Amino acid sequence: MKTIDFWFDFASPYAYFARAEIEKLARRHGRAVAWRPTLLWAVLKAQGIAPPGDSRAKWDYLLKDMERSAAFMGLPFQMPPLPFSSHLAARMVLALAQTRPDLIGPLTTEILDAAMARGEPIAEAGVLVTIAARLGIGEAEATAAMNGPDGRALLSRSVEEAVAAGVCGSPFTIADGEAFFGADRLPQIAWWLGRVPAASNAAVAASSA
Amino acid sequence: MKTIDFWFDFASPYAYFARAEIEKLARRHGRAVAWRPTLLWAVLKAQGIAPPGDSRAKWDYLLKDMERSAAFMGLPFQMPPLPFSSHLAARMVLALAQTRPDLIGPLTTEILDAAMARGEPIAEAGVLVTIAARLGIGEAEATAAMNGPDGRALLSRSVEEAVAAGVCGSPFTIADGEAFFGADRLPQIAWWLGRVPAASNAAVAASSA
Repeated sequence: MKTIDFWFDFASPYAYFARAEIEKLARRHGRAVAWRPTLLWAVLKAQGIAPPGDSRAKWDYLLKDMERSAAFMGLPFQMPPLPFSSHLAARMVLALAQTRPDLIGPLTTEILDAAMARGEPIAEAGVLVTIAARLGIGEAEATAAMNGPDGRALLSRSVEEAVAAGVCGSPFTIADGEAFFGADRLPQIAWWLGRVPAASNAAVAASSA
Repeated sequence: MKTIDFWFDFASPYAYFARAEIEKLARRHGRAVAWRPTLLWAVLKAQGIAPPGDSRAKWDYLLKDMERSAAFMGLPFQMPPLPFSSHLAARMVLALAQTRPDLIGPLTTEILDAAMARGEPIAEAGVLVTIAARLGIGEAEATAAMNGPDGRALLSRSVEEAVAAGVCGSPFTIADGEAFFGADRLPQIAWWLGRVPAASNAAVAASSA
């Protein structure tokens, strides 16, 4: 099945705003979402982009825009204490995806919902263990995933791959080689996917059935 | 009549993408658009925001996003040689607005269309004189507006006012104290204006009729 790459940081409210809609769009167009957690600060640094918090005016605007965007999209939202560290979450998900690929979507949803809809401090290992447990992942496995060498190596590689793919923010969606930055590009992504002739969409859907 | 402040730079394709829709939204909600040309580079510098062209990855993304956004919105678009100087256009419009306030909307439209739909080099005084002539403004008046002390002083003041208003990009729309950055915030602006009770909208429209 053709994929839609969804690059994101677990500390990004805009990734949370876009997640459910990206899944719906992918389903409608016979695609799978490739969840690509990464570390936005490291990607921005490599791309020569200053963190948005460097400008007081920009940061003040973004905080208001996040609250309003959540209301506009009808999503529950608890402003997290931004910025916060998302490397444990990213390492855990990337490592678990090696052995449990089917869980990466539900786990991504659980973690983003915990952080953004319920205000849970997902920077903490204990919180991530509890979230993993809801999906049937034991404490030892979750802890090994977030602290072991696999997770560390996979996260380093994800930053390198994000930089190479041109990622310049979160979320950053790539569909058929076309890149879309931001939750506000959802209408353009829908429009772009709809431009693919229906017959070829059907063929893709049939081949994956 | 209540206004919607539309802060923008004449060298901003996203200002061109949003202009017509902002006018429609204002009309639908009984508002007038207050056109606020400014110099984005000066505003960004004052706000501590790096120009988007400082990052190769971000700039490459934006150039593609501009082309795609124009296609998505169904607007003719000729990529201008970005960045280019917009201070003559801004000074001319700000100075002429003092004596011909009714012309500022049509003049803004003409200049943005010339720059973005037809690829005319609006950094050049001669091109601006030709555009002004289409609206019945003579060469002497147009030239005085773009080079005289009024235009210079008004543009300096507009940068100061933009910074004070929290502007952090172009276009930057402020409606009832709520700020919206980007052409991609048009759906949220429509939603926001629609939240104002219909009765008070009607009262505003009636009082200005």
